[in-house]
Parts: sequence; structure tokens; C-alpha cells
Amino acid sequence: MTQEHRGRQGGGRAARRAQRTSAPTEVQPYLTRSIAPVEIVSNEGLELIEHNADTILEEVGIDFRDYPPALTLLSQAGAEVAGERVRFPRGMCREIVKASAPATYIQHARNPTRSVMVGGDATVFVPAYGSPFVFDVDKGRRYATMEDFNNFVKLAYASPHMHLSGGTVVEPVDIPVPERHLDMVYAHLRYSDKPFMGSVTAAGHAQDSIDLAKLAFGDDFVAENTVMTSLINASSPMTWDATMLGAAEVYARSMQASMISPFILAGAMAPVTVAGVATQTLAEALAGMAFVQLVNPGAPVVFGSFASSMSMQTGAPTFGTPEPALVLYTVAALARRLGVPFRSGGNLCASKVPDVQAASESMATFIPALMAGVNFMLHAAGWLEGGLAMGYEKFILDADQCGLAGKLLEGVDLSENGQAMDALREVDPGQHFLGTAHTLVNFETAFARSEIANNDSFEQWEDEGSLTATQRANSIWKQVLADYETPLLDEAVDEALLDFIARRKESLRDKTG
Amino acid sequence: MTQEHRGRQGGGRAARRAQRTSAPTEVQPYLTRSIAPVEIVSNEGLELIEHNADTILEEVGIDFRDYPPALTLLSQAGAEVAGERVRFPRGMCREIVKASAPATYIQHARNPTRSVMVGGDATVFVPAYGSPFVFDVDKGRRYATMEDFNNFVKLAYASPHMHLSGGTVVEPVDIPVPERHLDMVYAHLRYSDKPFMGSVTAAGHAQDSIDLAKLAFGDDFVAENTVMTSLINASSPMTWDATMLGAAEVYARSMQASMISPFILAGAMAPVTVAGVATQTLAEALAGMAFVQLVNPGAPVVFGSFASSMSMQTGAPTFGTPEPALVLYTVAALARRLGVPFRSGGNLCASKVPDVQAASESMATFIPALMAGVNFMLHAAGWLEGGLAMGYEKFILDADQCGLAGKLLEGVDLSENGQAMDALREVDPGQHFLGTAHTLVNFETAFARSEIANNDSFEQWEDEGSLTATQRANSIWKQVLADYETPLLDEAVDEALLDFIARRKESLRDKTG
Repeated sequence: MTQEHRGRQGGGRAARRAQRTSAPTEVQPYLTRSIAPVEIVSNEGLELIEHNADTILEEVGIDFRDYPPALTLLSQAGAEVAGERVRFPRGMCREIVKASAPATYIQHARNPTRSVMVGGDATVFVPAYGSPFVFDVDKGRRYATMEDFNNFVKLAYASPHMHLSGGTVVEPVDIPVPERHLDMVYAHLRYSDKPFMGSVTAAGHAQDSIDLAKLAFGDDFVAENTVMTSLINASSPMTWDATMLGAAEVYARSMQASMISPFILAGAMAPVTVAGVATQTLAEALAGMAFVQLVNPGAPVVFGSFASSMSMQTGAPTFGTPEPALVLYTVAALARRLGVPFRSGGNLCASKVPDVQAASESMATFIPALMAGVNFMLHAAGWLEGGLAMGYEKFILDADQCGLAGKLLEGVDLSENGQAMDALREVDPGQHFLGTAHTLVNFETAFARSEIANNDSFEQWEDEGSLTATQRANSIWKQVLADYETPLLDEAVDEALLDFIARRKESLRDKTG
Repeated sequence: MTQEHRGRQGGGRAARRAQRTSAPTEVQPYLTRSIAPVEIVSNEGLELIEHNADTILEEVGIDFRDYPPALTLLSQAGAEVAGERVRFPRGMCREIVKASAPATYIQHARNPTRSVMVGGDATVFVPAYGSPFVFDVDKGRRYATMEDFNNFVKLAYASPHMHLSGGTVVEPVDIPVPERHLDMVYAHLRYSDKPFMGSVTAAGHAQDSIDLAKLAFGDDFVAENTVMTSLINASSPMTWDATMLGAAEVYARSMQASMISPFILAGAMAPVTVAGVATQTLAEALAGMAFVQLVNPGAPVVFGSFASSMSMQTGAPTFGTPEPALVLYTVAALARRLGVPFRSGGNLCASKVPDVQAASESMATFIPALMAGVNFMLHAAGWLEGGLAMGYEKFILDADQCGLAGKLLEGVDLSENGQAMDALREVDPGQHFLGTAHTLVNFETAFARSEIANNDSFEQWEDEGSLTATQRANSIWKQVLADYETPLLDEAVDEALLDFIARRKESLRDKTG
């Protein structure tokens, strides 16, 4: 276990105030884009996909499994229910979503300077989610533990480029499954003050997440504000299961945000074509989002999309190929037409190690996601091996790319300073711009800077050990963890959290033992 | 020296015909995009940049150094010439270019099935250009030789993803500088049948390139057709030198294509802002392209842009940062407004080795170039270390990404098959799509496939040696060279080429000795 500085310098409001005012202010809590999202499908094409999605919702329908309350709710709203199959009149889901789902929402952080906007022109980067393994170049691949979980929470806290602390950043296999969610939510509240994601592994786990958040934020605050965004995955094709529906219902009733995410491996869970995947994604997401709005109109929902292609040779998922990028551009445009925030994956790859395959595949998802207008970029850092492993070096390498993205989204500065005509007039042909007033004024902020890239001469680089980017990232994550300082947390709050967790674990053990 | 199969199975027209008809036809000689180029600057913004470029051309002017014929020509056309400084009335260059420069042209290959279109909706990938060093993971970094040059010509010939054979794919330092261009052009004609780039290191070298091409294509053919596109770099800021102007003039007089390329390291040779770099690039390119059109109206020109940022700490060039990507989107749009083909860099990086830095930086240039609508992508494969080294593994890794790009540029198929409604209607919720008729019909071509990516399970991958993508690329380039077969070349033509080269070398030695 790494040693932590718990910062118990007095509790109560005064400490919380001190902590909040001492928070860094120069770092933006989220990115705001100036460039328009890129669209590659015409309005007519998008209308066709919407029409087809309605056809599927009407003719094939969606299964809502083992969750009778959903069937009742949807039936009352006008859907045709036969067994667990729900068929929707054309346009029904869209109307329900458009009537009450917010276009943007604020997800509050424990540290208010880190609260984020989700939707609209905002983009947030969020660590990868759900890996049972971790990987680093020293020890290789192994099952993840709670120590790994805490480490990734700390790395995300320390990175100015991660806007959320994440959710199940890894699966801590050394903690019993029924209790795991408690330690995970605690880690997000204790080792970070960034916004985080709640548990979705059961309705009761969602409620525990809310109850823990209430201890940290205050009952009234949580009653009135969104403090969690949680990942509700479909069982594609065309199925929502009781676990996810139960968690979504709990969050919706408390006005907490649900990310309604079809999870598609094209060829297996969906057709092999881009338009087919987009159609199915839209149909599944519409049904899920409509359910949430019926539970509690106005509860924030995010339209999620996770789409990978399949190797038609081996059946394995592949990443970084053109088809998922095309899906991304298409579904992002569909989400905008619906008027809800959009979530996609970020630095996705199939590679087992942080190598050129990992980087190329990641960039081939990351850049399209940025350009398409993603609002909530899950898996923005750390993802390896199709999500089976969370990589320490990969996390640092990906976060570095996230750090460069802000400048891209700002677009081209056409102000007088941006036009640089003074400099262009000042410098004669064949001369250089290094000493011009314009260069000197803009020197510090002129170019986004990678923290990983080595731009030295070959000889300098060789003298310093001929390190690859992955080797440099290896040093960086160790240094970041060594330098980590726990954000302040009111001692009384911490005790309340620990007490709640102890009692819940006891009661869970009584049940399971 | 690797041993070559020279294929001297009889000469003359019959052999040439046989060769041409036996060429593979399933591979497209160039990509054609269906998705619209991405623009990130408004029309008003682009007009502002054009206005500013005209202001620079009018007020500051451009130096045409040590090349009196250019001064005469430009003066006669209406420019104001003072010493070597040329100032242009507003709009003059644009009018000259728009009046006669072709929007697209065909660059003919020795093998007609490999001829490419440059401009419009077409995109061609071209190997990296100009490195004095080579790098492979076995032997590390070393000066390039003629053997390396031949190897890269062979690798580009063998790759279905490289559309041109390139130009100075490396600098063969074992060949004397004055003779080097002869061996280079010979290698492109002998070891490949793809289109290539001519020498620009002197007007005489350009003429030699044309004379060699005449021997391979026939005098009449070269007189009437473009068989070379050559790289004419500006000496930014705002300067064209005699070497480049002389080469451009020779090519233009023979209706061969010139790529007029400002070569900018922002902060040193241009202002630090994106709009400033775009303005200067436009001004320099306009002046260069106008010169070519004055030499020979209608000679093909390509609007080139090479823009890198500078580390403001060390002065080193950096790659893969957001600012050059923004320049790329902006300048591509300016080229379209001018109505000429656009050239940019491709897989650029500062990294010394084919690692994650190399891949991330490369993708951060490659994807914007694709999306921005590049027509002629120079440096599409092999580039390392800011262009100082050509990498064997990097070439294979980059070419693989080029291979994926075609599907991206095709965009979303909205045909009946693309919509996949049959499949979506056929599969019930919770079932899979693997066996549907639609999946089976589309199985083979459904997804673009990387030749490098490993999508196996961790255990399979480990069993096969835990190879990184770079290690796999190392095996691949060796195998490709081992399997290489020289394309057919009429024996008489080969002899004529060798004879010409021997005589020219003798005469050059007389001069320099």
C-alpha cells in the first residue's frame, strides 16, 4: 500500500471552505469547443436512419427483461407490451426524450471548482472503465486490486487532463463482489475531489452510491443536484436487463445522470454495416432514454455509443478501424438532433501493450470522437486489450493526448493577435520571427505542449538513455503517485463515509454469509 | 546488394504490352473520397486570410533570389520589382493561378494501370522524402545508402497502399551528390512501375529526370503528358531560391507538375499563430504558383503546405500537436478556394524510434490530412525524427494506416445493403447476427483490416512471443523485400537508361573533377 497524507487538518465548514478556495483555478474543469462538430452524413441520411430506428422500435421491439415496473411504465405511456417485448409507436420514444431530457447538465464535484458541464459545447475526459486486469511494463499483466483502483483514482486526480475521476476504473478483484462498490465510491470521494460515476451492478448498489454521495455533499445538495453520471449498458441487440434498468431507475428518481449506452460489437450484436449499427444504437438508446424520462422527467440522460468492429476471421473485437469512426460521426449527429449529450469511447485499442498498435488504434478513435463532438468521453485514458486491461503507462500516454486536445477544439484564432499581421509586416523575406514582438508576447502559450514527446536531437536523446515514450511514461506514473497528496476531506465526513461502509458491509455479509 | 530478378524475358512493344495487361487490376491506383472535406474556418475567416495574404504580397513582397528570369517574367506580368524583391498588386497572383492552373491532372505511371489523378476527390499516398538517415530496430540509425534507397522503392512498389514510388525516399550518401539524382530516378523506373517524383536539386537535374522519363515513356508521351510531380520548397519566410525556381521552370516548360510548398517551422520561419502561418503559406504559395503559370500557363501545380510547430524551450521542431492540424484544415480550404490540388504531410513525427510517440504524432497529422481533403500526401510512410530518418518498420506501420484510410473516405453506405434492415428485422432481441444472410453476404468486405494489428487473446499473443507491433513490422519488411519481384521493363529501355546515366556521370565527373 502506498502511504497517504490524509490531510486531517481540522474538519467542518471552515476546512471545506479553505479547501475550495485553495483549489487550482488556472485549470479548466472541462473543455469548451469553438469548432463545429464534424458531420459526415447528410440531413437526409440522418432522417433515413431515424426512420429505420423507428421501424425497428415499432416492428421488432425491445426486450425489457425481468423488470416488470418498466413494462408497466412503458405500457402506460402508449407502448405495446407482449411478454417482455415492448414495441413503440413511431416517434413515441423521441417525443418522450425531447419533451423532458435536458440538453446539458452540471455534474457537481466535491470540489466545486471541478464541477463539469455535460453536453452542448462541453467535452469531458474520463478514465477507462471496467477492466479486470492491469498492465505496467515492470510487472506485466495481472488481476487488478483495490490498490490499483486507488492508484488510478490518484492518477486521474493528479492529471489536469482528466475531468472526472471515473467509475469502475478497474475491477478490484481482491474485494468481494457484493462489497466492491462501497470501496470504489469511497476511493473516488476520498482520494479525489473530481466528479465521479456511481455503481450500476445492482439497484441497491446505486442507492449506496447515492447515500455515500449524500454524506459527502449533503442530503439537500444531492436532492437538488446531479453529482453522479453512471454507465447503463444495453444488452445489445435490443435488450435492457433488470440490473441496468434497476440502477437507472434509482439514479433517475434522485435526478442523477444515466449514460444509456448500447454496447455493440458489429457483426455479432449488430449488422456489419455502419448505418445498421447506427440504426440499432439509436433504437436501443431511444428506448432506454425514454424509460428514464418516464421514471422521472427531466432526469439527465446521456446518449452513449460504444461500437467496435469484429475480426471476421477470429471473432475478436477490433479497434481503431474506420467503421467505428464512421459510426461515431453518425451517432454523435443523431444525439445532437435529439438534443441530448453524447458519450463515446476515447483511446480504445485491442493491443495488449502500450505499443504502436495501441497508439494508432487509440488515436483513430480519439480524434474522430473529438471532431464528432463527443461530450462525455469515457475510456479517455488507460484502456488496453479491448478493455480487459487498464494500463499504467497507457494512462499517462493517453492523458497527454487529452492535454493537447483543448487547443484543437479552440479552432483558429482570427483575432488581431491571431492574424499576426504585425509580425508578418515586421519580418523581411529570409529573416526569422524569433525576436519579433508578436513572438515574444505569445511565446509562453503559443503551442500546446506534450509532456511525453521527446523533441531533442538524436544525440541528446541517446545520451539520456534512448528511452521510448512508453519508458518515459513508466517513470511519470511512478513519480505522480510518489508526489500525490490527498485532497482535503472534512474529517467528520470521512468518518461518516467509513461508518456507513462498515455498517453496509456487515449487513451485506449477514445476507450473503 | 540484394539480388534482383530483372525479368529480361524479351524486349520491345510486345513485352511492354504483356506487362501492362498483366498488372494487378483489383487494387485502386488512388483513393476517391465520398465524404466532404472538413472545414473549420468560416468563409469569412478564409476571406480574411486571403485578404491578409494579399496585403503581405503587396506590402512586404517576396524575394526571388539569384534568378533574374523570374524577375523579368513577374515584372512583365505587372508585379513591382525592386532588386530581388517582388511586390504584387492585390489579387494578381490569384488571377494568374485561377486563369490557367488545372484543378486536377493525371500523373502517368510507367504501368498505366497505376496512373493517378491528383486533385479533386482523389487522394494519393507517397513515401517520406529527403532523409539522410535510415532506422531499423536491428541496426539502429545510420546514414542512408543507395541500397536503402532501392529498398524503399521496392517496399513502396510492393505496398498496395502506396500510390507513388516517391522521390528522394532517402538521401543515398554513398553516391556523389552531383550524380545522385540519376541513380534515384533510375531506381524509380527500374524497381517500380508506379508514378514518381523528379529531382529538384538543380535545373540540370530536373532536365535529366525528364530525359530519363522520355527514355522510359517515349518522347512524344512525355511531351504531352505529366509523368512527374516534383517538390519545390520555398525558403520561408517569403523567399524562393534559384535552385528551386530553376527546377520548377524546367518542369513547367515540359508540362511536368510542381508542388509549390512553403516549408514552415512556426515561431522561426513564420509567426506562432495558426492564422499567421496560413496567411504566410498562402502568400508564398501564390507567388510560386503564379511564377509557374507565367512560365507555362496550364502546367500542373500543387499547393503544398508543410507546417510544424517549434518547441519554444529548445527550438526543435515538434509534430503531432494541434496547431499544425489546424493549419492543415485551413490551408486545404484555401487551396480548394483557389481551385488547385492540395499537398500536405502525412505520418509526421519527431520521435527517433517507431514507438508510441511516433504513432500518436503521426496519427495526429495523418487523420487531419485525410479529413481536410489532402490530394497528395507526401511523407505518408516511413518518416521519423522530424524527417531526418526513414524508418523501415515505420514505413510498414504507416502504410498499414494508409490501407485503412480508404474505407474512412468512402463514408457511410446508405444503400439498401448498407441500411441492413433485413438483418435488423431478422434477428430477435438478445440473439446474434453472425449467421444472418446479410452478415454472410457482407462477411468478406465488411471491415477494413489492419495487417499489423494483433487482435488475438492475451494468451495466444503471449504464446506467439508477445511481439509488439514494431517487432511484427520488422518481420514484415524483411519478408516483403525477400519476396520482391522486379516489374518488367523493356530490356532496350533499361539499356538506354543505363547508357544515358553512364554518359551523364562521365560528363558530370569531367565538370566536377
